[in-house]
Amino acid sequence: MAIGLDEVVAAETVLSDVDGARGQLVIRGHRLDDLAGRTTFEEVVALLFDGFLPLPADVPVALGAARIEAFAMARPLLPLVRDRPVYDAMRAVMAMLPDGTTTADALRLVAAPAVLIPALLRQAGGAAPIAPDAATGHAADVVRMLGHGADGARAAALDTYLVTVCDHGLNASTFAARVVASTAAGLTSAVLAGLGALKGPLHGGAPGPVLDMLDAIAQAGDARAWLSHEVARGERLMGFGHRIYRVRDPRADALKAAVARLPQTAGRLDEAQAIEAIALDVLRAHRPGRVLETNVEFYTALLLEAVGFPREAFTGVFAMGRVAGWIAHAREQALTGRLIRPQSRYIPPSAAAA
Amino acid sequence: MAIGLDEVVAAETVLSDVDGARGQLVIRGHRLDDLAGRTTFEEVVALLFDGFLPLPADVPVALGAARIEAFAMARPLLPLVRDRPVYDAMRAVMAMLPDGTTTADALRLVAAPAVLIPALLRQAGGAAPIAPDAATGHAADVVRMLGHGADGARAAALDTYLVTVCDHGLNASTFAARVVASTAAGLTSAVLAGLGALKGPLHGGAPGPVLDMLDAIAQAGDARAWLSHEVARGERLMGFGHRIYRVRDPRADALKAAVARLPQTAGRLDEAQAIEAIALDVLRAHRPGRVLETNVEFYTALLLEAVGFPREAFTGVFAMGRVAGWIAHAREQALTGRLIRPQSRYIPPSAAAA
Repeated sequence: MAIGLDEVVAAETVLSDVDGARGQLVIRGHRLDDLAGRTTFEEVVALLFDGFLPLPADVPVALGAARIEAFAMARPLLPLVRDRPVYDAMRAVMAMLPDGTTTADALRLVAAPAVLIPALLRQAGGAAPIAPDAATGHAADVVRMLGHGADGARAAALDTYLVTVCDHGLNASTFAARVVASTAAGLTSAVLAGLGALKGPLHGGAPGPVLDMLDAIAQAGDARAWLSHEVARGERLMGFGHRIYRVRDPRADALKAAVARLPQTAGRLDEAQAIEAIALDVLRAHRPGRVLETNVEFYTALLLEAVGFPREAFTGVFAMGRVAGWIAHAREQALTGRLIRPQSRYIPPSAAAA
Repeated sequence: MAIGLDEVVAAETVLSDVDGARGQLVIRGHRLDDLAGRTTFEEVVALLFDGFLPLPADVPVALGAARIEAFAMARPLLPLVRDRPVYDAMRAVMAMLPDGTTTADALRLVAAPAVLIPALLRQAGGAAPIAPDAATGHAADVVRMLGHGADGARAAALDTYLVTVCDHGLNASTFAARVVASTAAGLTSAVLAGLGALKGPLHGGAPGPVLDMLDAIAQAGDARAWLSHEVARGERLMGFGHRIYRVRDPRADALKAAVARLPQTAGRLDEAQAIEAIALDVLRAHRPGRVLETNVEFYTALLLEAVGFPREAFTGVFAMGRVAGWIAHAREQALTGRLIRPQSRYIPPSAAAA
């Protein structure tokens, strides 16, 4: 019995490796530390897609053109999704994209969240959406479309974030995308499955609640008392612990370094680091048998807040980066030609009632 | 290594059992033969949902109300998806549905394909959509909305079809829905994943091509010569063979019986049965080592054609039935509280190049 499939190998992949025991994430042979803050998101998209989709001569130019195309397609649909949560609105518009398997289809799907999240946030605030600029870098253009103009520090932080979350082995959303792609369905089909799984609180849902926790601690005043109380009554602390990592999540440090480079976050970062230290101390005291280290979500929360995203958009920004991994995995799976179709064990009514 | 997961048990379920060796499909303790043609789709929805969602006092009335609600929601969106393939158009509109986990959310998702497929087909033909009638049975209302009025024979055939395909163990689309639901995402998220997987030619795509094959044989004149030629050059015959069933697919006979009850199909059925017999003969002669029996898609094609669906709508009508199973499985998975997150095996660049 393998419910949860924790120990089951469901795919061979050249794309990424999560070494939970050593706390290492490798993307196609490169350690995350060598990518985050040193390469652009466009470079990582090219790295992930290489061999799975024909690469355009200039990926930044092609992705810029895809942003323009996605914006033109999305613009008339924006008023229709005005009353929807931003993530659901983004997904509904993405469900309108053509469902093919070409490089153009892939780049349109990568471009869509980058264009849609800023447009939907501006619409929600009563402002007109800002059209993308194909000549700007992908992350810098998202910052522009949010209304922050040319802000190199914010753009660099977001670029680091998108690279950091671009892929992460067979997480639930990537696996969902591979299951769909294994039927030879199109990339939009696979990405919609990934988006659905990422939405689930057990997968992509925690960076927003990290800020809620920091707010609650600020209001309560005494961090150690608040954290001890939560842990003592059996609550999970948001931003700590991971199903795979037995040591510190390597993405936490990549993101912390990016937050530290943002000029406006000094006070917030000091405060968060102090709380992180107390939280780890409290967890070690109350849960001595368990490994509960800082995960990706703790510093994600600080970074996305500093870039200018409201917390209800965090999961959508996660998708903005992870969509690159979903597409590469979907292509890798489809090229095996193998349908993913596990068995179930049937419990007949008599046994279920017994 | 378990690529494809063929031998892996990924869920325990009370919902259905596919016994491939004996050619039996059981839905919650009932053999398909005891359900198909004897119970309504609404009764099977209640059977599948029981214990996973609070059931309304009168499921047919509640599902009728859900059709009215889905139609009102969908109507203004229809012109926006006019140029999309019918399946993609249906999915795009369904992506606009609220993403909850209540009975109302579930019934809206069950109602949506039943309302959308007829409306989209009529729109494509330049006709105004026909609003649902909450007081009519689910299958009969679909026939009405297609423009065939009150046609009891067609309604009975469609009802049998929807019951026959309502659930089928852990097929790829149901598994995709369970992976998404395992993250605690909503039912729309899970259903969108199911819809994506069902679209794939390796899963839900063959009943349309069955009719293409019958057309090609009719044009060629000599069925045995045409079929022998196809098999000899290594082509798959559409409507024959199944990954699980080692004997005849039990759904084939349920659907054949329903087609035989339709008055207008006598000639078509005789012709198809003759071709089926020749095809099985040819397959036994050319592929003696393989078990290739008639599968669900062969008689699905004849049934859906007789009910009045064009072949490009067949996969959408499949979803109209299977959506009930996806939702029940999504709820069953979510109630376990267990995230589905398998492992992958990383192939580093040096090994991949070697």
